[in-house]
Amino acid sequence: MSQAYNHFNVTFPAPYVAHVEINRPEKLNAFYQEMWLEYAKVFNTLSHSPDVRSIILSGAGSTFTTGLDIQKTNLAFPGSDGARKAWGIRRSVVELQECVSASEKCEKPVICVLHGFCLGLAIDIACATDIRISSADAKLAVKEVDIGLAADVGTLSRLPKVVGSLSWVKDVAFSARMFNPQEALRVGFVSAVESDKAAAVNKAIEMASLIAAKSPVAVQGTKAIVNWSVDRTVADGLAYTQAWNAAALQTEDVGEAVGGTLGKRKTRFEKL
Amino acid sequence: MSQAYNHFNVTFPAPYVAHVEINRPEKLNAFYQEMWLEYAKVFNTLSHSPDVRSIILSGAGSTFTTGLDIQKTNLAFPGSDGARKAWGIRRSVVELQECVSASEKCEKPVICVLHGFCLGLAIDIACATDIRISSADAKLAVKEVDIGLAADVGTLSRLPKVVGSLSWVKDVAFSARMFNPQEALRVGFVSAVESDKAAAVNKAIEMASLIAAKSPVAVQGTKAIVNWSVDRTVADGLAYTQAWNAAALQTEDVGEAVGGTLGKRKTRFEKL
Amino acid sequence: MSQAYNHFNVTFPAPYVAHVEINRPEKLNAFYQEMWLEYAKVFNTLSHSPDVRSIILSGAGSTFTTGLDIQKTNLAFPGSDGARKAWGIRRSVVELQECVSASEKCEKPVICVLHGFCLGLAIDIACATDIRISSADAKLAVKEVDIGLAADVGTLSRLPKVVGSLSWVKDVAFSARMFNPQEALRVGFVSAVESDKAAAVNKAIEMASLIAAKSPVAVQGTKAIVNWSVDRTVADGLAYTQAWNAAALQTEDVGEAVGGTLGKRKTRFEKL
Amino acid sequence: MSQAYNHFNVTFPAPYVAHVEINRPEKLNAFYQEMWLEYAKVFNTLSHSPDVRSIILSGAGSTFTTGLDIQKTNLAFPGSDGARKAWGIRRSVVELQECVSASEKCEKPVICVLHGFCLGLAIDIACATDIRISSADAKLAVKEVDIGLAADVGTLSRLPKVVGSLSWVKDVAFSARMFNPQEALRVGFVSAVESDKAAAVNKAIEMASLIAAKSPVAVQGTKAIVNWSVDRTVADGLAYTQAWNAAALQTEDVGEAVGGTLGKRKTRFEKL
Amino acid sequence: MSQAYNHFNVTFPAPYVAHVEINRPEKLNAFYQEMWLEYAKVFNTLSHSPDVRSIILSGAGSTFTTGLDIQKTNLAFPGSDGARKAWGIRRSVVELQECVSASEKCEKPVICVLHGFCLGLAIDIACATDIRISSADAKLAVKEVDIGLAADVGTLSRLPKVVGSLSWVKDVAFSARMFNPQEALRVGFVSAVESDKAAAVNKAIEMASLIAAKSPVAVQGTKAIVNWSVDRTVADGLAYTQAWNAAALQTEDVGEAVGGTLGKRKTRFEKL
Amino acid sequence: MSQAYNHFNVTFPAPYVAHVEINRPEKLNAFYQEMWLEYAKVFNTLSHSPDVRSIILSGAGSTFTTGLDIQKTNLAFPGSDGARKAWGIRRSVVELQECVSASEKCEKPVICVLHGFCLGLAIDIACATDIRISSADAKLAVKEVDIGLAADVGTLSRLPKVVGSLSWVKDVAFSARMFNPQEALRVGFVSAVESDKAAAVNKAIEMASLIAAKSPVAVQGTKAIVNWSVDRTVADGLAYTQAWNAAALQTEDVGEAVGGTLGKRKTRFEKL
Repeated sequence: MSQAYNHFNVTFPAPYVAHVEINRPEKLNAFYQEMWLEYAKVFNTLSHSPDVRSIILSGAGSTFTTGLDIQKTNLAFPGSDGARKAWGIRRSVVELQECVSASEKCEKPVICVLHGFCLGLAIDIACATDIRISSADAKLAVKEVDIGLAADVGTLSRLPKVVGSLSWVKDVAFSARMFNPQEALRVGFVSAVESDKAAAVNKAIEMASLIAAKSPVAVQGTKAIVNWSVDRTVADGLAYTQAWNAAALQTEDVGEAVGGTLGKRKTRFEKL
Repeated sequence: MSQAYNHFNVTFPAPYVAHVEINRPEKLNAFYQEMWLEYAKVFNTLSHSPDVRSIILSGAGSTFTTGLDIQKTNLAFPGSDGARKAWGIRRSVVELQECVSASEKCEKPVICVLHGFCLGLAIDIACATDIRISSADAKLAVKEVDIGLAADVGTLSRLPKVVGSLSWVKDVAFSARMFNPQEALRVGFVSAVESDKAAAVNKAIEMASLIAAKSPVAVQGTKAIVNWSVDRTVADGLAYTQAWNAAALQTEDVGEAVGGTLGKRKTRFEKL
Repeated sequence: MSQAYNHFNVTFPAPYVAHVEINRPEKLNAFYQEMWLEYAKVFNTLSHSPDVRSIILSGAGSTFTTGLDIQKTNLAFPGSDGARKAWGIRRSVVELQECVSASEKCEKPVICVLHGFCLGLAIDIACATDIRISSADAKLAVKEVDIGLAADVGTLSRLPKVVGSLSWVKDVAFSARMFNPQEALRVGFVSAVESDKAAAVNKAIEMASLIAAKSPVAVQGTKAIVNWSVDRTVADGLAYTQAWNAAALQTEDVGEAVGGTLGKRKTRFEKL
Repeated sequence: MSQAYNHFNVTFPAPYVAHVEINRPEKLNAFYQEMWLEYAKVFNTLSHSPDVRSIILSGAGSTFTTGLDIQKTNLAFPGSDGARKAWGIRRSVVELQECVSASEKCEKPVICVLHGFCLGLAIDIACATDIRISSADAKLAVKEVDIGLAADVGTLSRLPKVVGSLSWVKDVAFSARMFNPQEALRVGFVSAVESDKAAAVNKAIEMASLIAAKSPVAVQGTKAIVNWSVDRTVADGLAYTQAWNAAALQTEDVGEAVGGTLGKRKTRFEKL
Repeated sequence: MSQAYNHFNVTFPAPYVAHVEINRPEKLNAFYQEMWLEYAKVFNTLSHSPDVRSIILSGAGSTFTTGLDIQKTNLAFPGSDGARKAWGIRRSVVELQECVSASEKCEKPVICVLHGFCLGLAIDIACATDIRISSADAKLAVKEVDIGLAADVGTLSRLPKVVGSLSWVKDVAFSARMFNPQEALRVGFVSAVESDKAAAVNKAIEMASLIAAKSPVAVQGTKAIVNWSVDRTVADGLAYTQAWNAAALQTEDVGEAVGGTLGKRKTRFEKL
Repeated sequence: MSQAYNHFNVTFPAPYVAHVEINRPEKLNAFYQEMWLEYAKVFNTLSHSPDVRSIILSGAGSTFTTGLDIQKTNLAFPGSDGARKAWGIRRSVVELQECVSASEKCEKPVICVLHGFCLGLAIDIACATDIRISSADAKLAVKEVDIGLAADVGTLSRLPKVVGSLSWVKDVAFSARMFNPQEALRVGFVSAVESDKAAAVNKAIEMASLIAAKSPVAVQGTKAIVNWSVDRTVADGLAYTQAWNAAALQTEDVGEAVGGTLGKRKTRFEKL
């Protein structure tokens, strides 16, 4: 569990709870290729770790992340013609999308704490987590339009499914304007706003601990089925649930959970 | 119309309005197999009844329903190996899903009144109705994780489409925490909160009566097209609407409705 | 740019900003066939005009539009039997749907200002634009049920994706009841409410100008990708983004935008 | 197992093999409402019977079925206007579609033996089975156009997925022309053509027996996954397979099957 | 009916049968912009003409078409950078795709007669028709790779659904190699091969006449439902059929068709 | 280019053509975990190599592959209950599926040469390639049912889209029976049958060389668009093609290809 990373701190603030901190505060946690490759590695590892049942994501220092480190990211792609340049661009976009999607593919719930500047890639990352809570000081923006491009790491694909106002999604995505945590709460982008970063992290630890105390079979099945269903018809959601639960209901966690409830005792679930 | 059911009261509080009451108050309206099979029968019957144009669903007594009656529901499935157990589980899940979906397949609008405890299966049922209103005393929870399983009767497939904050959906689904009617209103799960159960039922009767006074061709077409469109692309929604309305616009209700509006008289629509 | 239309005023209140006004105020901007055919022509033209980067839509006079002009729209379709009538109906619905969809297919962002009466077709039209803002005096209704038909020009297909409460969508669609701008804001149908029509139009011009000052490659790509993604899985959204941006990232706007930001100077983007 | 039906003979010609015979030879096995309701009951029962692992479907007498019994099927639907008639039609089509789909939903493989006249509904039924073999004397036609209607019980939805030439599908569906077993074999509609009905039934029994000797967990999982995958993307096919096999691979049939192969002995699988 | 076109001959060789001939034989019927715009106009007009029930498409002279006229088609797109060029390319591709799709959107069945050279765009066009028959002299190729581009006018999207061997589709699409009518017949691309062009056209007239003698309600419904179903799940195919036939079954053609069959007399169907 | 693998020989029999040979002939090329992980690595590497434009896959020795090496593959999964076992199974299935999908994700065309025994995993692998050709001595079977499981590495998801007879797919998948190359050719599973392995490999080299001589922009775009389109609606296929070709048509290969054709000289395309 004590694996060391170059750009991320991974700690365990409570039983079965991991805390991933983006750790490049001297550059406001801006990302470059080596970092996003490592980001994927962190979540892939936690996804299969039996000692982890819920995960918190935040940034070291005052800022979550200001997005791409433009100094260290080459936006001029080589190639002898427009098509050949396109091949290189596509491969880069695919790589970055796959890395950011790691938190979505991660079997465990991921709670994202937004604080300080949360720009561009910050929103892509946040959209690929499960629950978002915000510090009152967060300054958020779908910033990509301001560097001349359509957000291509997932914000445009996920944000319309994450919040309940397409008018608002297009407003912030076309204009790249800042929005604040209260607005984020009103449209459903975040579930809670806390007074400052420390309070938001504490709130996340509390939520993560509550989740980690539940049956991991139940919680991880819930994540899998919700993520599947968001994208598909109700009928396909129900069919997938049938297939999934045909195995998952064979868990002893049901007996343990029901027994715990009836006996009013603390439940204890096997590792998964 | 006077069909008697063992676990449901069906009354007709206003013209063309049916009121279905879950009627096992001594067990807080908890469900077991015989009940959900009958639940489907109630809605299948109302769906084709020409005397019904809108339906209200509530619970007898103070509680809507506490969900599955765990005493009367066998969660240990037989089978000589894990695969054979899975077959039995799958068949049970299919049966329960199909029964709960009866209110969705029902041609008429269904207004669900949430009051008292609304736990587990209560949310699955509510998600499969059309409009939800709540009494101020309702105590709601996606409770399944607390008995060791992922909700498999529709909540996880429908809730992300019913409300506008995926962060909130995952919050309540992972943690099984209680949420109150005001929170439910804020995220759009319910459309209205009334002071108590009686007020909520009255509000539902008022809404149901308003809807029942409209052209049933128009209202039932609206339900069919919205339910189709939620799950599909806009293009497929438009195409289905073309096919549907090619028949539906051949109704005399258009003349009656327009005539009523112009003549400022009460409209009267043929049975459907 | 000075093309004249019979039923629409097209003006240019700011650089790269077009303002389309529905112009039949003596009939409360009610639509009939000639008008919707022209409506499509307006948006198809603006879609490809290199001098336009964002578009505002409002109504001449106090009212946005009261919807179909029933006097000038034949709702009795000829045909020797029910099937033959259906063919005529379907062709009419297809034509009207395609015209209203022109603002959605339009490559540029469209901001809809709702004011005065916004009934029936008004909502279909508004749903097919990108951003909706409202005057405080707007009186809105999904009115079709009141003339005996299910809304078939897009409201039922788009509204559930535009706002975040399916319960509310069905409430207003089944009952045809009026809702006001504050309610529209709460459910996310509009992004902002201004004190009166003039203020709302000014707000729209301000938003449109802000958007028009951005890279058109970035903004129009954002519209294309969001519209695609709303209807599809996240995976298909990401794949389409890869293909789209493989060309779009070959723009010099990235350099211009980054340079502008770093040099704190105004950016200037080539026509598109 | 000895349930008696009015219009179907169900026999058991080999271990775990059921043979369903449409039994109204005096009317060339033409269908009417009572029959299709019973048809669904037959397949629903066999679907869950642990004593059945594969099913053969054929017709009593020389003809498979000539389709709908037009004398006993009311094609004039009541209703005071075109929309109200449409409601009745739709309910009838739904009922008939659901009955014919029973063989597709049936968990066990269904082998359809086509012989004599196979017209209209015969093709709908055949498309909803898994494997089709034909007697050399079969006379086949997608006959619905000849009674003035588009085939609405599944042929038009399933045939393009069942065979590999869309040109051929449209040829036979537009023209209602007869096609013979050799043509059916060439386009892949049937897998084999036998000299006469007896030979075809024998071939079916042989195939059914071979299948019935395999692990029912493996065979029924194969049917479920293929039917799912035909309609969906490869990615969704793979995801569903993961969920399905997470339970199915927990079977002891793997050990039994591998042991049988290595020990060159006959395998014996538990009931399912 | 006597509308004249610059690049197409439209004749009426039999009752209710239209014959569209690509008419630029001096250039082997190669297409340029003016032609494909007119092509769409031809099919849009025939689609709604009550005097047409089936359509034949062939080429004037010995060759069907050699595809794009590269001399008259500008493949160098203007634009100050790669993104701006892409916008122009995309608009051109959209226009060409929409024109070629006109035969697919056309309500009436279209039978394509392939003869002589059938290269590149010829295959795109053929894939967008309903039934394909070939003269024995046809020389066919998915030729686009040989001019440095992936076929973008529909072949790559439609061919895998039109024939039954994905291995073959990729073989001919990657290599641009010629294939002959017998190979086309074997894989199901064409339904029939006739000795020469005249025989193929005669065969097409015969098929078209047979189809034109049927109920147009039935035939056109069949085209609509098959085209819908090819692309969607069986469940969505069945649902669309319900909606479609709710209107279509209200035709008097059923009575006429059944009466004709029983009375062994010629049927006569109203115009549609 | 000279990377060495433990279980695969990678050679370059012609310019831009790679030949991947499964190299464990002493075990009939049976696969175990280390092998399938390396298999993915081989195709991922070739996918991005500018020196490779088409790929051949075959087996060392007389047999292509007999599938899973059951001795070296643990089919008994640990876990304290059925749900926990399911998690392990699912992770294993995901890993194996992703490795086999590497040839599908590979940007370059892959031609699979089937020879000798081609059992179980052999068919999964073959379905994930682009073109299949067979030696006359091949003995093929969808063998999984014979070891008690439904094929879960892609055959059941891909085979129905690869060939044109669903009846045949289910026949071979339910029965696990052997089929020969002629049958495979008839149903479209393979595109060609050659007299023996050497002839089949030579044929593959010839096809691969032909493809490698074409514009790689055109060929690889063709693979991407066909793979996308097979799984989606025609409309979505066309839309993706628009986005893809907006970049790809900016290639100088069009000029080179057209110039080569007109000048009847050999074309030479830049690396990609």
